[in-house]
Amino acid sequence: MSAVSPLQTHRSPQGNPHGARLDALRAELARRGLDGFLVPRADEHQGEYVPARAERLAWLTGFTGSAGNAAVLRDAAAVFVDGRYTLQVAAQVDAALFARIPSADQSMADWIAANLPAGAKLGYDPWLHTPNDVEKLKAAVEKAKGQLVAVAGNPLDAVWADQPAAPVTPAVPHAIAHAGVASAEKRRQIAADLVAAGEDAAALTLPESIAWLLNIRGTDVPHTPLPLSFAIVNADASVSLFIDPAKLGDDTRRHLGNGVSVAAPDGFVPALAALGQAGKSVRVDPATAPVLVLETLSAAGARVTRGADPCLLPKACKNPVELSGSREAHRRDGVAVTRFLAWLAREAPKGSIDELTACDRLEALRAETGLLRDLSFDTISGSGPNGAIVHYRATEASNRVMRPGELYLVDSGAQYLDGTTDITRTIAIGEPTPEMRDRFTRVLKGHIALATARFPQGTTGSQLDALARLALWQGGFDYDHGTGHGVGSYLSVHEGPQRISKAGNSIALQPGMIVSNEPGYYKTGAYGIRIENLVTVTEAAPVPGGERPMLGFETLTLAPIDRTLIEVALLTPEERGWMDGYHARVRETLAPLLDEETKGWLEDVTRPL
Amino acid sequence: MSAVSPLQTHRSPQGNPHGARLDALRAELARRGLDGFLVPRADEHQGEYVPARAERLAWLTGFTGSAGNAAVLRDAAAVFVDGRYTLQVAAQVDAALFARIPSADQSMADWIAANLPAGAKLGYDPWLHTPNDVEKLKAAVEKAKGQLVAVAGNPLDAVWADQPAAPVTPAVPHAIAHAGVASAEKRRQIAADLVAAGEDAAALTLPESIAWLLNIRGTDVPHTPLPLSFAIVNADASVSLFIDPAKLGDDTRRHLGNGVSVAAPDGFVPALAALGQAGKSVRVDPATAPVLVLETLSAAGARVTRGADPCLLPKACKNPVELSGSREAHRRDGVAVTRFLAWLAREAPKGSIDELTACDRLEALRAETGLLRDLSFDTISGSGPNGAIVHYRATEASNRVMRPGELYLVDSGAQYLDGTTDITRTIAIGEPTPEMRDRFTRVLKGHIALATARFPQGTTGSQLDALARLALWQGGFDYDHGTGHGVGSYLSVHEGPQRISKAGNSIALQPGMIVSNEPGYYKTGAYGIRIENLVTVTEAAPVPGGERPMLGFETLTLAPIDRTLIEVALLTPEERGWMDGYHARVRETLAPLLDEETKGWLEDVTRPL
Repeated sequence: MSAVSPLQTHRSPQGNPHGARLDALRAELARRGLDGFLVPRADEHQGEYVPARAERLAWLTGFTGSAGNAAVLRDAAAVFVDGRYTLQVAAQVDAALFARIPSADQSMADWIAANLPAGAKLGYDPWLHTPNDVEKLKAAVEKAKGQLVAVAGNPLDAVWADQPAAPVTPAVPHAIAHAGVASAEKRRQIAADLVAAGEDAAALTLPESIAWLLNIRGTDVPHTPLPLSFAIVNADASVSLFIDPAKLGDDTRRHLGNGVSVAAPDGFVPALAALGQAGKSVRVDPATAPVLVLETLSAAGARVTRGADPCLLPKACKNPVELSGSREAHRRDGVAVTRFLAWLAREAPKGSIDELTACDRLEALRAETGLLRDLSFDTISGSGPNGAIVHYRATEASNRVMRPGELYLVDSGAQYLDGTTDITRTIAIGEPTPEMRDRFTRVLKGHIALATARFPQGTTGSQLDALARLALWQGGFDYDHGTGHGVGSYLSVHEGPQRISKAGNSIALQPGMIVSNEPGYYKTGAYGIRIENLVTVTEAAPVPGGERPMLGFETLTLAPIDRTLIEVALLTPEERGWMDGYHARVRETLAPLLDEETKGWLEDVTRPL
Repeated sequence: MSAVSPLQTHRSPQGNPHGARLDALRAELARRGLDGFLVPRADEHQGEYVPARAERLAWLTGFTGSAGNAAVLRDAAAVFVDGRYTLQVAAQVDAALFARIPSADQSMADWIAANLPAGAKLGYDPWLHTPNDVEKLKAAVEKAKGQLVAVAGNPLDAVWADQPAAPVTPAVPHAIAHAGVASAEKRRQIAADLVAAGEDAAALTLPESIAWLLNIRGTDVPHTPLPLSFAIVNADASVSLFIDPAKLGDDTRRHLGNGVSVAAPDGFVPALAALGQAGKSVRVDPATAPVLVLETLSAAGARVTRGADPCLLPKACKNPVELSGSREAHRRDGVAVTRFLAWLAREAPKGSIDELTACDRLEALRAETGLLRDLSFDTISGSGPNGAIVHYRATEASNRVMRPGELYLVDSGAQYLDGTTDITRTIAIGEPTPEMRDRFTRVLKGHIALATARFPQGTTGSQLDALARLALWQGGFDYDHGTGHGVGSYLSVHEGPQRISKAGNSIALQPGMIVSNEPGYYKTGAYGIRIENLVTVTEAAPVPGGERPMLGFETLTLAPIDRTLIEVALLTPEERGWMDGYHARVRETLAPLLDEETKGWLEDVTRPL
């Protein structure tokens, strides 16, 4: 597993330092004539994993979750978190300093509208907010009859004495054997897209887009193998890459070639201004770019078109080399996970395995493949009630021993050069209750419904989401997270633009996209269930008599699903057939790659229902 | 059935008059210095049914479909229609005058972008286009480097010598016994919504909203019982109604009361301007209002907020009186439909019934209830290949006798004071083929999946749509229309804001909403299948052990589904149970209301599978 948590560098050994930090920030705001300031958990790239220097929200408030916002006014301050983090924010943030507000109860915008005094100046860092964010903030501030002010230079950085430096790790070529398509070809494809849209250039601010486009990878942040950078891609297929030159060795410079000019990150804004001065038409993604990018372009005279980052969709549709790499990565990962599950089946009923031990064991087995580059995210290893915490991360304090009669949920993934994995299995330790079997089987029915769905071109994940929930809904249950997220190819474990969720999404599922299939059920204080495989969108084999071409899913993940948790009577014959077929495939694919003991165990747990 | 088709007044007895009309329009455009003009099939209210004077598209081009657009330039002209109308436009529109373009191949906006000469002035009537329309048109015209110009006075009207006058039919009170909630109470509710949104008023341009708000009905257009009018509803719950005073008798004026001031329609624009001059904040629905409304307000200084017509959502959520009226209307309508189906079962196998005869018979049986006010739309009565034409309307020319071995599809509905109905049944004439039974059963499985779905609050129709399609998708089939539309209470048979369809829709299904459940299958040139019941959203009865409240559907429509078309082996036990349960309910509810012969027939066709 990766990187020491960047947050440990923020912790003061003398106890809670957040009062002093809040005071210092307020003093700095006063010096600048500001009445308030917003502190999102965001960096300039809107990344899920951010470098230590961008952990401003954690430094100021103590809250270390992966999403959240703080608003600091003269006389009030609040932290806003989503449903995943209501318990964590209560444990980490001092209520005497910050109101701790679930965003579902009150959004930050509504809080600002209600709490910002009329005439007050609310500052924000235009590197850390997107145009879409700022639009909402503006409406809120107008409602309060205040003023929203972009600041030059983040005032929090000014008072964060020991703020870490930006990471400088090597950016390395991602071999064509894994990338499948040369960067020059990708750049031509994006350029053709810009030409068709009548645009001269696009500003790229998502490092994963740049990593995909240029076939480079890095280690600037945990779990997602990318170098932090900005870029401009032009309609002539040339690219300007803005990256710390210290990240680039000779081999990487050679790899980038003549079509890619390199400059330091502080050259990005002047380059945008130059595009504007030349009257160029430039695409900016209003959902992901810093608002500063859009405003720099507009102020300099560019014709700005708001549109999706042009790399998002082609990056999501994996090419044949990436897909075959993913299949290989999933066989390899399946071996490690199956060895882990066999070990767990042997050891856990003895009552000696705890969540952290299990985490370590799973990582060690993945490391034994010799090809593990990183975990794709912090392993979620939750026994009993901890399994019901959707984004649980075991700590020394929370660590539980697995006890017979409990469920154990483990959600984990790996980064290999040939693919990114993400798998969840729920395991009965000893004998499960009938209730657990009922809920597990409903989750499984949802998982199967999605895995076996056939659907016409143009279908979005939003349209399919209910298939994964229906068996739970019929019983009066549901789960409060999405059913599926896109997954990168040795890149982000969460990527767009497609998703399978209740939230509306207009992106049709297309062949080559990789998405997760992960319905769940959570009983607070008792247990959690989730069954997650990655699948890829394929052209479905035609059915005799069928009239229209259909798409479907090929399941990539290979590891047994706990048959002791399946209530067979609740399955239809077709569902039972899917389960037996999947287990046969897992057995046939993995058995030749396993030691004898694990193979014997696998044969037992994958026998037909 | 209702109203003579308004189009008959447009037809010249000397044959195709459209060349002369197009010439006259072009001459008028030249006189006004315009290079082109747009002719949508729309009135000032964006109504599905429009008065004869608004049938400009039909007058100019001959195309009488319910949706379409024409664009007329100096040297080119085109009519754009959706997939329903590609055959009809080819039959009705002279290709020498107008290119006939399916919108799916080229949208009108794309055609304009490609065909409008640089510098040309393209006119449009700002009464007939919404702000959302105009935004798209502007982008297209800008692409062509032309100019989009709102005209004062429709140039087509100037050359349409015998354009019919606006309809003047009585606006009558809709009794509280049917409406359920007094207008004053509805006005208070809308006013509270405006206050909460910080708005002073809302402009209402949809006559169905006004009819709902004021509890009035009328007969200005076919099939939808509403008086054409505009209104302004204020945050103090007062309403200004702009309607031809000749429509209002004393009883209606008394019914409207003091809270509603009445003025002629030409007072609407000055009243909007007055709101602007007073600096008011006014809500305009950019999807349905004429752009003139928005621009009048803005130009006069109003703060315009773009938001949904405030009546849409409360109108969609029927109150208990409306729901109980709808149940009564469906019993009554079910008796008429069941009598029709029994007659059809007796007569059609003899080979003597044609589509028009069937239409007439069904209408006559509805009229025999003594309570029929109108059909809710033109009956779709299609046998054999005509059943595959989704919006088919039988004519003397197209009329077919039903022959053994064919399917017959009949989609029809009625307007009663207590409710609006809409039902489709597909009937095998004689012995159906195995293929017909397979397809019908897949459609039925989709219908049942939706009818039995349970889903949490916040679920939209877009999320449920796939449930109705899955059994078709699995076989390689689909249908190219939505699965469900909202239905009014003695109002429009198609209403929003909810819908069940592939298209994204952010409106959650809420208790009291009435929607159709109408999956289908169409084999061009052979037959069509559709099974449509209306359902209402209800709070689902809790399931033992269930943790979350769920919503579900109560089926309102009562008429047998042709069991000879059901391939029982394809149904799950649960699906079979639904079918038998529905038929038992139909039998038990309708039998006491039927003559002995029909009752005997119904008992036979509703026996368990």
